[in-house]
Amino acid sequence: MDTNQITFREAVIQDLDRIVFMLSDDVLGSKREQYQQPLPESYITAFQSIAADPNNELIVACSGEEIIGVQQITFTPFITHRGGWRATIEGVRTASKVRGKGVGSLLIQWAIERSKERGCHMVQLTTDKKRPEALKFYEKLGFKASHEGLKMQL
Amino acid sequence: MDTNQITFREAVIQDLDRIVFMLSDDVLGSKREQYQQPLPESYITAFQSIAADPNNELIVACSGEEIIGVQQITFTPFITHRGGWRATIEGVRTASKVRGKGVGSLLIQWAIERSKERGCHMVQLTTDKKRPEALKFYEKLGFKASHEGLKMQL
Repeated sequence: MDTNQITFREAVIQDLDRIVFMLSDDVLGSKREQYQQPLPESYITAFQSIAADPNNELIVACSGEEIIGVQQITFTPFITHRGGWRATIEGVRTASKVRGKGVGSLLIQWAIERSKERGCHMVQLTTDKKRPEALKFYEKLGFKASHEGLKMQL
Repeated sequence: MDTNQITFREAVIQDLDRIVFMLSDDVLGSKREQYQQPLPESYITAFQSIAADPNNELIVACSGEEIIGVQQITFTPFITHRGGWRATIEGVRTASKVRGKGVGSLLIQWAIERSKERGCHMVQLTTDKKRPEALKFYEKLGFKASHEGLKMQL
């Protein structure tokens, strides 16, 4: 795989099966995703909500026709920081066969450029403390672990 | 102040001056906010973007007519977690004169109930590691610090 040939685009509904497969093909994802045919309706509804929202973008990385990575970027206007917009990255996954080949870095770099285009003053994400290698990956890309990421299941 | 009398509502543009004052009246906020008359245009633009977005709510806590707290809640559809919606809380502040009187807890509890109404499976936030007392406050309310919160200034 030539990483110079990787392209990025917004996902379309036909990509959803492959996206859910990638999300489920992961240590933590396998416990919480439900990859089956046909896909559970909740994935389709979520895809439609994202597609309809100008402040949410579901982005796939492609090698030729093949989808090898995915991420979601959410753009949010806040009153804090003098009314600044921020980008939040979530659900970053690469296909298992290309892991360690730099596709994840390219995805994040793409998200950073897109966030600048959208006028964001900050890009942020949270990473599970059970993924120490992910923390190192993001720190290498220039992120600072300045915050605690708190979650509550409802 | 009787905390049973505190009410919550979506902010209107007339509240913005008071909101920005509360955000700036804080150790970290004083370095990054710009409270002045008239308010910088960027705050007004951000307020309008939030007001126009059905997935963002800027909520104020009131004691009678007086605004004593603020928070922003963002509702986001994700593909992860079987296509679940999450709520993200940001910019939680209470007026300095009521700090330590439980207004912050009431704000967060209100956000949790609102997130349930909106069908979210999770409520999340990040808190600056420079605010150890805030971490304890959120943990007491039931949040788990399971994630690292990473930020990058653009």
